[in-house]
Amino acid sequence: MVESAQPSTFAWERLHEFATRVFIHDGLPDDEASQAADVLIASDLRGIDSHGVARLGLYHEMLAIGRFNPRPRITITRESPATATIDGDNGMGLVVGPRANEIAMDKAQAVGAGWVAVRNSNHFGIAGYYPLQALKRDLIGWAMTNSSKLIAPVWSSERMLGTNPIAIAFPAKDEPPIVIDMATSAVAYGKIEIALRKEGAIPEGWALDAQGADTTDPASVAAGGSLQPLGGDRDRGGHKGYCLASMVDILCGVLPGAGWGPFAPSFAVKQEISSRKVGLGIGHFLGALRIDGFIDPLEFKSQIDDWVRVFRAAQPTPGTDGPLVPGDPERAAYAIRSQSGIPLVAAVVRDLREVSRKTGVPLD
Amino acid sequence: MVESAQPSTFAWERLHEFATRVFIHDGLPDDEASQAADVLIASDLRGIDSHGVARLGLYHEMLAIGRFNPRPRITITRESPATATIDGDNGMGLVVGPRANEIAMDKAQAVGAGWVAVRNSNHFGIAGYYPLQALKRDLIGWAMTNSSKLIAPVWSSERMLGTNPIAIAFPAKDEPPIVIDMATSAVAYGKIEIALRKEGAIPEGWALDAQGADTTDPASVAAGGSLQPLGGDRDRGGHKGYCLASMVDILCGVLPGAGWGPFAPSFAVKQEISSRKVGLGIGHFLGALRIDGFIDPLEFKSQIDDWVRVFRAAQPTPGTDGPLVPGDPERAAYAIRSQSGIPLVAAVVRDLREVSRKTGVPLD
Repeated sequence: MVESAQPSTFAWERLHEFATRVFIHDGLPDDEASQAADVLIASDLRGIDSHGVARLGLYHEMLAIGRFNPRPRITITRESPATATIDGDNGMGLVVGPRANEIAMDKAQAVGAGWVAVRNSNHFGIAGYYPLQALKRDLIGWAMTNSSKLIAPVWSSERMLGTNPIAIAFPAKDEPPIVIDMATSAVAYGKIEIALRKEGAIPEGWALDAQGADTTDPASVAAGGSLQPLGGDRDRGGHKGYCLASMVDILCGVLPGAGWGPFAPSFAVKQEISSRKVGLGIGHFLGALRIDGFIDPLEFKSQIDDWVRVFRAAQPTPGTDGPLVPGDPERAAYAIRSQSGIPLVAAVVRDLREVSRKTGVPLD
Repeated sequence: MVESAQPSTFAWERLHEFATRVFIHDGLPDDEASQAADVLIASDLRGIDSHGVARLGLYHEMLAIGRFNPRPRITITRESPATATIDGDNGMGLVVGPRANEIAMDKAQAVGAGWVAVRNSNHFGIAGYYPLQALKRDLIGWAMTNSSKLIAPVWSSERMLGTNPIAIAFPAKDEPPIVIDMATSAVAYGKIEIALRKEGAIPEGWALDAQGADTTDPASVAAGGSLQPLGGDRDRGGHKGYCLASMVDILCGVLPGAGWGPFAPSFAVKQEISSRKVGLGIGHFLGALRIDGFIDPLEFKSQIDDWVRVFRAAQPTPGTDGPLVPGDPERAAYAIRSQSGIPLVAAVVRDLREVSRKTGVPLD
């Protein structure tokens, strides 16, 4: 069979329905299956292909082998008016994360700020999904998560931290919102995989080989190497990226009692067995702030409009159209994909057809 | 007169008394003068020479010409149980910052989290000072501040953002606390100044010239160039550093109604007149979280001990002693300087003698 190298395009609604029905097949309650699909499809719509339906096959397999609890009893284990810790009961992060985020937002609306640390969860999709929900309530939203080890600290050759993203969003009035969603590694692991497939080199400053030397060979990264933290080596500020990844790890891992550092559980079916278990699952840290606890919200949003316009007007470097505002690339993808559909590469389509075959849920 | 190139060493207590008496001479109430000196000396003790008594001459001059209000009436302009905005009445950041931080910590103790945004303030010393205060109350402390423009966004050649630091600290049980305090630029401007004095080159990835090209010439940075955000160029993740600096700018500048972006006031006597005024002074964002709002504090601290030991034991890269834990370099400086005194280069001693001459406060 010859497969087209051209991506196939699917309407987001169809992919949403497919994912929902797969999750229902895998034992999730209807509303939680739909919630999980929301988070996945939000990623595809925003152009972050690595975190969307490309992962559905893996999620399905994790549910099928009992690695995730399809019907978690999510509980608050401790709380104060502005804070809480949630135990996700080994549920999918795509279900536990949104629930915890609701609690953070409710607390913010009640007392001005809400912070929820989550343990015993699993990968929760794109971090940016959560602050986008906060925008709907006119809140500033924050989200972080830890994840399985990929980054080596500066002066170490050992994978010790995940790519631990930080996301935050600010609403504007007439301009689009400012949406930040960034890993604290120099680069996403997906870019190493792309270079591997193309048999190309990667730039210096992205990764180390197993001995801890800066490498441009993606194969040596896969063979026991590691990603560098944001900034790269010590001279270029890599210690700051290491600090940020550590901050995320402590807030998401240590604070709620989840796994942390090299002991955060792996997101894979053939899981590398961790040498130690220091907590439950992986962890998230979700926050919300009520704008009117600081300033008149309309004044804030007008100033954000002004900020966006001032930054867009900054002097471009030669050969560029000038600076972007955080969230622009994802918004551009959304504008196209919400209308024209989501392009999926052949390998992902194949994977979804396999899920369809196994579950009996039709893809087309 | 021949001046020794060797640094002179002063006991921190003597520098603290000198700074306190200078601030009293300049019109500050006794307790606020002492508070301001605390923040300054904390920087020298922790080895961050750029933010300590090296700035006393500048602070004195700003007070002498009336640029800072020595007796500000610091007010809460808006609040909720977990949040507040403070107007610093153009007081010294070294006084306004600690006051705002107290309010954030009080709120955290009352409802679990406290977040205070500050406007109409000035430079508040090292960001790390504030979370260190939170540790004394067994809180997790956060601090950010915006500052005058130095960083160009990715794809721009224009200075638009300050070096906008982020600080956070976590208490441990038997190990020292984890203390993160980092600018969101690739490098501090001080390192450009050092290269200028030595007439040496700077590494690629630190800075741009006035046309927006990556430069290794520190003179071209001073002549209208800019610093790169943490990460450097787009390929190496510079857009993430730009996102972080923007996040700090919005929380510190836009949220309380302070100056933001390129309009944050300059910290210099011969101030570059900003083209616009969008808010009052520069701004800070200070936060505190009560650990027992999430987890048993003893359990948290034991896990932090464990985290510290695990990270110290990570495989070193060849030629290094292995990874540091955030806060190690500052702790090492503190251990020496709190006992043996603070070494000051000749230019700083000269500057302090000039302050002594002008104010009549003896240095020796």
